[in-house]
Amino acid sequence: MRAVDLILKKRAGQTLGADEIDFFIRGYASGQVPDYQAAALAMAVYFRGMDAEETLALTRSMMTTGEVLDLSALPGPKADKHSTGGVGDKTSLVLAPLAAACGLYVPMISGRGLGHTGGTLDKLESIPGFDVHLSLQRFHEVLSRARLALIGQTPEIAPADRKLYALRDVTGTVESRPLIAASIMSKKMAEGIDALVLDVKTGDGAFMRELDDSRALARAMVEIGRGMGRKVAALITDMDQPLGRAVGNALEVEECIETLKGRGPKDTESLSLELCAWMLWLGGISSTLEAARTRARDALASGAGLRKFQEVIELQGGDPRVCDDLTRLPRAQSSIELPAPAEGRLAVLRCRAVGDAAMLLGAGRETLDSRIDPAVGIVLHKKVGDLVLKGEPLLTLRVNDRRRLEAALALLRDAVRVAPEAPAAAPLIRDVIH
Amino acid sequence: MRAVDLILKKRAGQTLGADEIDFFIRGYASGQVPDYQAAALAMAVYFRGMDAEETLALTRSMMTTGEVLDLSALPGPKADKHSTGGVGDKTSLVLAPLAAACGLYVPMISGRGLGHTGGTLDKLESIPGFDVHLSLQRFHEVLSRARLALIGQTPEIAPADRKLYALRDVTGTVESRPLIAASIMSKKMAEGIDALVLDVKTGDGAFMRELDDSRALARAMVEIGRGMGRKVAALITDMDQPLGRAVGNALEVEECIETLKGRGPKDTESLSLELCAWMLWLGGISSTLEAARTRARDALASGAGLRKFQEVIELQGGDPRVCDDLTRLPRAQSSIELPAPAEGRLAVLRCRAVGDAAMLLGAGRETLDSRIDPAVGIVLHKKVGDLVLKGEPLLTLRVNDRRRLEAALALLRDAVRVAPEAPAAAPLIRDVIH
Repeated sequence: MRAVDLILKKRAGQTLGADEIDFFIRGYASGQVPDYQAAALAMAVYFRGMDAEETLALTRSMMTTGEVLDLSALPGPKADKHSTGGVGDKTSLVLAPLAAACGLYVPMISGRGLGHTGGTLDKLESIPGFDVHLSLQRFHEVLSRARLALIGQTPEIAPADRKLYALRDVTGTVESRPLIAASIMSKKMAEGIDALVLDVKTGDGAFMRELDDSRALARAMVEIGRGMGRKVAALITDMDQPLGRAVGNALEVEECIETLKGRGPKDTESLSLELCAWMLWLGGISSTLEAARTRARDALASGAGLRKFQEVIELQGGDPRVCDDLTRLPRAQSSIELPAPAEGRLAVLRCRAVGDAAMLLGAGRETLDSRIDPAVGIVLHKKVGDLVLKGEPLLTLRVNDRRRLEAALALLRDAVRVAPEAPAAAPLIRDVIH
Repeated sequence: MRAVDLILKKRAGQTLGADEIDFFIRGYASGQVPDYQAAALAMAVYFRGMDAEETLALTRSMMTTGEVLDLSALPGPKADKHSTGGVGDKTSLVLAPLAAACGLYVPMISGRGLGHTGGTLDKLESIPGFDVHLSLQRFHEVLSRARLALIGQTPEIAPADRKLYALRDVTGTVESRPLIAASIMSKKMAEGIDALVLDVKTGDGAFMRELDDSRALARAMVEIGRGMGRKVAALITDMDQPLGRAVGNALEVEECIETLKGRGPKDTESLSLELCAWMLWLGGISSTLEAARTRARDALASGAGLRKFQEVIELQGGDPRVCDDLTRLPRAQSSIELPAPAEGRLAVLRCRAVGDAAMLLGAGRETLDSRIDPAVGIVLHKKVGDLVLKGEPLLTLRVNDRRRLEAALALLRDAVRVAPEAPAAAPLIRDVIH
């Protein structure tokens, strides 16, 4: 078998066999297939696609080039959630403690933010002392004790995906549905979970802006999960405006703690609860989705979720007092408000621009090596449809480094529009693929 | 400017600017743009194409990464011919001496054979002592003295093309019209010539099997030449059966010498003369194509072409006595004939299979590192349309190494078909793009 022949086969629009994909991916992981052949194949896949079987085979090959966690010794169902990424998308920090409090094991391996999107690891690291770099052994210990552990990608998990993802980033081959689906699922399926809930974002601030593209990606991932014998569902959720009110790492942790206290924004709370309910149901904790919803709500109302979050913060070296005293989180030096230009309703709040503005303030990364400032970000006072008075603050920028403040403000001024009438905001959950 | 943005632009089907192409190619030549980005761009170009301006810019960038010969000190027009490659395609060795004998300077930089196709350098090297590796300075001296020099690609000429071509070979991105056109033209335009005649082969034994593809490639190259202010024409010529009777290096040199003596096969002679006439006309040696044809025929009839060939062989270290004594060329040890299976007319003589069979005998290269045997090959006794008697030899294999003889014979048996009626053979010159 020669790598170039497989490139030619895919270039011609033919279907690659599982053995061929495995040959290529294993060769790539070991260095026998060079980067330039992987880049050519990725571009051919961009143009020709991959069918469900190829995508499944790709996922399996990338997963099995690395370690696949065996959590069978843990006495209970294991489940996780994965989001395709958005702005203010902080549900993990709410739903993971809730799900663990309800009896699920949640071995959550997360990523960092890039561009306009945030990442769970960056948010967790804004909690003083919190360590996301546990060894797999320590991960296991924390998980076993708290039913929840929150760590970053380790070198042992799907190394072929790690290598291929870095290559795709610099060869213009990121936006390929089968490659995205296989990349996500190869990491998630390596977690040794029984069930997975996917939060596939759609809209201006999402990776996939069009609903149909989001649906197709969701279907591809659900099929992979099914092909591997796991329970997988995907919720397609709105990312036309940021989720909740906070965008920025410590600011989002604060919102999550408030949400776990029952005082969070309605959208953050309801999406976190719904995703948690799906995890509980698919994981077999609850026998119906309705029962799972009740169970998740109860864990929130009782404070069990907040206590679970506090427990895992402590186990992972963080300061658990942040849950009681939010001033222990990093705070930016100054605040700048963006006033409403007119009276009316907030008609537009462009999501990607808000994410980009937060990135310019230092809350996000322009490139993978950029450093972030955990304290800075944006707090939204109005969401789409809200009534606003002229001059009333629409949002507050929390700022340390002012070098790119003007650029951020310019983005934000362009991102909002106040009009006499506002369109109905899109429903939060646009579709479910199950 | 970032290489990945140019890949994304091309991936989206947009047009790259000349500055962008130059940035990419210069970066690639210097090593700043890595192989994997060049591979991704090449695959995107395969799917999205390049328009005439982009192809011209690509050619110019690849050409100017290397040395561009300045032949302006030579007192007369300079012209060359380039063929896209075929089986038994030996016209260079006939037309170059003829054109030089008629007063043109012919600075011919040629390539080697690969797969089923032969290469001018390999043919020349079958002449004992002939040196195709002249320095550019010695090349200039020979050219200045004989008006003709025949050498191989030097590292100074279009190094970006050399690097990109090797990459395309292993990344499944060879078959892209703009990339093929720019690759050929970047080398030819670096020769410092005023005029170029392209022999674009079409049919079973050609790189492009379909006439329309050959026409499109020809048009792309003619446009590049025009964009660079050179006179360029392309003849689309038949490669459904081999040209002439000999396939194999020394065998083809023998046929060329016979042709220069007026005793060659009709197709080899007429195509060589026609291509030579176009060179003379475009180069300005003759004022009409008809006058150029007469001039070329005269140079053949007078023996001036043969004497020119003898002169250049001697100047490049070869044994000029081969022209008078063909037994000085390497000869294979044994001959094996393939008899006609029936009486009738030769209806099919599959060109690519004949080339592949010659390669199996050692006349050609399977990979770039294969060694070739200059003596071996195939001599055709019948061409399409010829009457044959049952048992009469259709062709003779000239053999040294018998290890792959059976495989070659099997290919050849499949390659010929004798039928009661034969279709009219395709005309040798299918079209002219000017």
